[in-house]
Formats: sequence, structure tokens, C-alpha cells
Amino acid sequence: MDPLPIRFVLVDTTHPGNIGAVARAMKNMGLSDLVLVNPREFPHPEATARASGADDLLLGARVVPTLAEAIADCGLVLATTSRERDHYFRVMEAREGAIRAVQEARGLVGPATTTAVLFGTERNGLSNEQLLSAHALLFIPSNPEYTSLNVAMAAQLIAYEIRMAQHTGEPQVTPAREVPLATPADMDRLYAHLEAVMEEVGFRDRTQSGTALMGRIRRFLNRAEPDVNEVNILRGMLTAVQSRRRRAGGASGSGS
Amino acid sequence: MDPLPIRFVLVDTTHPGNIGAVARAMKNMGLSDLVLVNPREFPHPEATARASGADDLLLGARVVPTLAEAIADCGLVLATTSRERDHYFRVMEAREGAIRAVQEARGLVGPATTTAVLFGTERNGLSNEQLLSAHALLFIPSNPEYTSLNVAMAAQLIAYEIRMAQHTGEPQVTPAREVPLATPADMDRLYAHLEAVMEEVGFRDRTQSGTALMGRIRRFLNRAEPDVNEVNILRGMLTAVQSRRRRAGGASGSGS
Repeated sequence: MDPLPIRFVLVDTTHPGNIGAVARAMKNMGLSDLVLVNPREFPHPEATARASGADDLLLGARVVPTLAEAIADCGLVLATTSRERDHYFRVMEAREGAIRAVQEARGLVGPATTTAVLFGTERNGLSNEQLLSAHALLFIPSNPEYTSLNVAMAAQLIAYEIRMAQHTGEPQVTPAREVPLATPADMDRLYAHLEAVMEEVGFRDRTQSGTALMGRIRRFLNRAEPDVNEVNILRGMLTAVQSRRRRAGGASGSGS
Repeated sequence: MDPLPIRFVLVDTTHPGNIGAVARAMKNMGLSDLVLVNPREFPHPEATARASGADDLLLGARVVPTLAEAIADCGLVLATTSRERDHYFRVMEAREGAIRAVQEARGLVGPATTTAVLFGTERNGLSNEQLLSAHALLFIPSNPEYTSLNVAMAAQLIAYEIRMAQHTGEPQVTPAREVPLATPADMDRLYAHLEAVMEEVGFRDRTQSGTALMGRIRRFLNRAEPDVNEVNILRGMLTAVQSRRRRAGGASGSGS
């Protein structure tokens, strides 16, 4: 069975042992695409020790400085979290998310695409800013009185569900997507464009700082899982606002 | 939720760190009955370190000299193994075994009884003699080219399946929403507003009629299931575009 295009992305991982344990967990379940964002120490003998035979995954791991780089070519982005619910994000249980990732990999919901699963730091998980890249949060059901899952354990559980999802699950009812999901880079450009336009028209949120507002908008639009065409429509609208304003501004300037 | 009568039995465990990691894995999933058969070193600081907050399980762990003593009061006995099939034993996948254990605990297949899940040594698993205590083997699906699951990982996966098995069939909890969903009327006003602004800035979709385009945008935004606040933010942006344009238009008008 060829490895599916499903990538595990470890962000700012503190302990090299955990990186090794994640590599082993992935290989156990037949996954191989590991990307490390800004690991504190890597390569490291403890990573190799804990990998215990999954050294090939460590050797093949790509190390990048930013999360954006890690997921640039991905379609769906799922962020692991201990939140069972969230007011802004769609939250999927690990089992549901794994099925979805396998469907994306097999092109059952649109053109086949790589899913990224993000794992945050041992202490704090993913930051709110990092979560903004995600289409949905991935939640592992656990004891509400003791939710502290080690990052390698979380990776093991999700990798296992991905393996199980390959066996079970008839191709099911999610309607096929004709157009690919917008990439994280597309989305970044969209948000930068929106921010520029809001700046130009002097939009100020009355209740929150500008960053918090853009965060809300990102979470909100990500929930819709926009495809390439939809992002193009939104950007077309933004461009229309800008060019009409510039024409108006030009008339005003020449008239005064 | 009271812990179910499901016991994890670690047999001849070599590394105390693994005992701690199993305790943590159990507590994460709401299990608490841990029995150690003839551990090489226990208690041990490394066990405590890896337990990371599940010290209560370690303190409560019963240490016994023989497997027979560990399981004397149990009903069903499941032995973890890396064998996918066996000529003599019934083999259950972890998911099936977890469902069965929960059914036993709840008295759904007979009087309620404790299930024991046995885990062997890190190097060799359970001996053939130890397997003889088992009603069935418990198999965790994995990559056939690399089946070497760490004992704590195996415990984590089975504990997780036990937790999942408790939820299966229970009514899904819909996440509480703090802010109400925007009403259809709110949404209509939003789309009318958007249409007016696009009209004002002269936005024209190049490929489709205006109606089809608004339909796309509606479907797209509806997918995100916007709440009242999110609709207000979008409308605030649209208003900002309009008032800046009107101010600009006014200046232009007075200047000409």
C-alpha cells in the first residue's frame, strides 16, 4: 500500500524524543510525510533512539522555518487541539477527520490533495495565530478531567485512525468537489488583499483590535473551506472595490 | 463517568518509563485499573516522570507475581498481539475488542464483568503459555512492514477505542453556540447589501450572470454557517466601503 498524501507537521516541538516517537507512530501506520517547523533540536540522538527503526522517516523529514512553508502545497489543513468545541472553527473528531483526510487523498471529494495535520508544542499546543491556517480542528475524545495527551500519543491515535479509515468506510456522501481547495498561500493572499482594502476604506472594528478581527474573519472563511474559484471571486470583488475607489480618488484629486 | 471495569495488565514489563506512559494513556481515556505482573523495576522515578500527572494510577497499581493472580477475578481476557491471524485463537481487531469489553462491563452480553487486556514485554510480547489465559487475541491494525508498536502506544490505542466504544450509539452533543446563527432574514440583508456594493463598484463576474454569481457566494458563505456577529462584521465592512466611496464621490463632485 503506497503511503497516502497525508502530512504530519510538528510545530515548534521542544523535545527531540517526541519527534522520534512521532516518526515511529507514523511508520507503524504506514505514513511517511513528516515536516518539522522550527524544532528546538533536530537531528538529535534521542529522536533517533525513540524512532526505533523509523530512522528513514527522520532522515526524510523536511525542516522548515515557518508553518506557511510546511503547508504551502496542501489542500485540507487540520489542527489538533484539546478543544471539544469551538465557537469559530469546525471541530472534527479524530475518526471523522481521518476519514476526510483519506477521502481527500483518494480524490473522493474533489481532485486528490494532500492533507496536513498540525501538532503544536508539548506545553501549549498550537497558537491562535497558527490555528488560523486550519480548515478545522481535530479533536481526540478523552477524559475531560485529564486531557493532556502527549504529542506522540496524539500522532499515534490519528495515524491509527487514518489507517483504519483506509479499510473501513465505503466512499460516502460528501459531494465531490470539482475545483481544488484554495491552498494556504491562496488564502494568505486573500486575507492580505482584504486587509489592504479595509485599510483603504478606513474600516475599523469598534470592539476589537485589528488582528483579532482578521483572526475572526479567517476562522469564519476557513470554515467554508473555499475552493480556488471562490477565492478568485472574492479577490475579484476586492479588486473592483479598489479600482473604483482609485478612479473616484483620481477624479477627486484632479478636481480639487 | 465512572471508570469501567476494564483492567490493563502489564506482564514482565522491562522499562519503568513504559509503565508510567501506560498509566498516562489509561487516565487520558478514563480508565484506572492497572495491574503489574512481575515488573523489572517498580516503583521507579522514570515511571513517575512518564506518568506526568497520572501518579494516582501508579499509586493505585497492584503489583502481583503471576499473571494468574492478576486476572483471577476477570471475565473476559484479551491478549494484545501483533498477529493478524492465528490458527487457534479468535483474533479481534482493537475496535471490535473494545466494543466487546464495554459490552461486558455494561452487562450487555451477560452479567457485568471485568475485562482484562494483557500486554507483554517490550521485546517479545506475551509468551505462548501466557496467551493460554486469553479468550481472544487483540490485534491492532498496522503497517505490515513495520508492526513494532511500543507497549504504551498499544495501550493508548486500545484505551482510546474503549473510550470511543462508550460513546458509540450515544446521542451526539451538538456544540453549544454562544452567539445565535444568523437568521435567514439576516442573511438576505447581507446578500442584498453585498449586491448593492458590488453594483456600486461596478463588479461584474466575467463568466456568469450576476444571479448565478450571487448564488455561488450564498452557497459559499452559508457553508461557514455564520453567526450574528460575523454577519455584522461583514456588513460593517460593506458599509465602510460605501461610506468611503461616498465621501470620495462627494469630494469629486464638489471639485468638478
